[in-house]
Amino acid sequence: MITGTTKLIGHLGFPTESFKSPMIYNPYFEREGIDVLVVPMGCRSEDYPGFLKLFFRLSNALGALVTMPHKVVTLAIVDEVRPTAAIAGACNAVRREADGRLVGEMFDGEGFVRGLLRKGREVAGQRGLVVGAGGVGSAIAASLARAGIAELGLFDSHAAAADELRRRLVGHYPALRVATGSNDPAGFDIVVNATPLGMRHGDPLPVDVARLPPSAFVGEVVLTHEITPFLDAVRARGCAFQIGTDMLFEQIPAYLEFFGLPSTTPDDLRAIAQLR
Amino acid sequence: MITGTTKLIGHLGFPTESFKSPMIYNPYFEREGIDVLVVPMGCRSEDYPGFLKLFFRLSNALGALVTMPHKVVTLAIVDEVRPTAAIAGACNAVRREADGRLVGEMFDGEGFVRGLLRKGREVAGQRGLVVGAGGVGSAIAASLARAGIAELGLFDSHAAAADELRRRLVGHYPALRVATGSNDPAGFDIVVNATPLGMRHGDPLPVDVARLPPSAFVGEVVLTHEITPFLDAVRARGCAFQIGTDMLFEQIPAYLEFFGLPSTTPDDLRAIAQLR
Repeated sequence: MITGTTKLIGHLGFPTESFKSPMIYNPYFEREGIDVLVVPMGCRSEDYPGFLKLFFRLSNALGALVTMPHKVVTLAIVDEVRPTAAIAGACNAVRREADGRLVGEMFDGEGFVRGLLRKGREVAGQRGLVVGAGGVGSAIAASLARAGIAELGLFDSHAAAADELRRRLVGHYPALRVATGSNDPAGFDIVVNATPLGMRHGDPLPVDVARLPPSAFVGEVVLTHEITPFLDAVRARGCAFQIGTDMLFEQIPAYLEFFGLPSTTPDDLRAIAQLR
Repeated sequence: MITGTTKLIGHLGFPTESFKSPMIYNPYFEREGIDVLVVPMGCRSEDYPGFLKLFFRLSNALGALVTMPHKVVTLAIVDEVRPTAAIAGACNAVRREADGRLVGEMFDGEGFVRGLLRKGREVAGQRGLVVGAGGVGSAIAASLARAGIAELGLFDSHAAAADELRRRLVGHYPALRVATGSNDPAGFDIVVNATPLGMRHGDPLPVDVARLPPSAFVGEVVLTHEITPFLDAVRARGCAFQIGTDMLFEQIPAYLEFFGLPSTTPDDLRAIAQLR
């Protein structure tokens, strides 16, 4: 029930048609009697810097979920960028502090790490390989670093992207060992596909699964189908793994906490979500 | 069910706590499966001109319901002001045309006129007295003029306000006879209280009810209680009348039509509204 006391979380991106967050958050808010609403707002790039600022001046603005194509530019608009967002090179959440300052954070990687921990695996002291150093790969690498991973391998077909990510990582985490230039999964405890490989029929696999340790935990970011060809091969190899939508639902509680709202479990959110 | 295809009607004003429109429109949209949402937006005056423009650049912005304190300034922001809004000196609705131009309209008076017509009374060729030449009085006078009233009496304790309204009216309706300076209801077919008199205990009545023709139709804008002291006296006098909330619900279909949405009756809207 939307009233004059309802607080808004703007879901800012363009185009809006594929947005999923309203159907995840709003059924939960309604069930819990939380007087907050996620509102899709189709904001184009040329309007975004001005709109974000003015949106947050609304007396009932609580937060923003930021998506394509605004995640990177948000870094330059907010007053404070959290380390994970700085390393990721993008923000997907913004909130207003009591003093009016806007703070940007990035939860794409947090969802991956939370899911891994919930499945009984560890990050601290482990070795991780992240294939793909774009937005989501950078976010996952940043969150693995925050969770205490000891060593990271980064690979991107555009080598400079991996090197840039390495530079940002070691700037914030000087003790972290980071290697770039190889997508060989041998010897890694955690292996993540953060490339779009698997979205299209006939894509090559992101790593050589024959060299993947069966003890490794594997993550996938591709959301187009639950079991991508990569995960199919990973499963045959005997590895534990996490599907793309796990990452999605694992990050929602992190957003709720960031916005100062009562939280719940990813499974509860998944059960109440009205995705079609 | 809010999704990425949902269109937005921004309800712009400050403060928002007393907003009623979300609880009137949204239950109707939900019942009818109309993929539109009225969203309260607590926009302060200093942010309003910029925010209104950027709100309407959202790809899913459909319209705006404008309320205090923005109704007057909206005239200067939109690209086209409809005659009724120009005479009223205020807009309470804005929509975007296909070419991007913003059009401002004013429906406060339309609600009064529609209610009167629904109750079987006429406006065309009649004589009307509007007491109070502020925002709502001006809007009612403008709508009565548009509906073909022959003669208008205007009264305001601040005489210049009535004279200004007279000037705007005859500029748009040169054939309309307009007199100012008297609140004597004798000889009028339609008499409207458009002052706040009746909101507070002990307020004087807006006109001398003893001089009110029992055949007159009387309108009231005060919403604090259904039967104000004025309407109580009017009823004792034997006049037909319309309460403040009738005007409110009568104008909703006019907004729906303005926004290009399927409409319904005021009674239906009143039955489904979830006002508390």
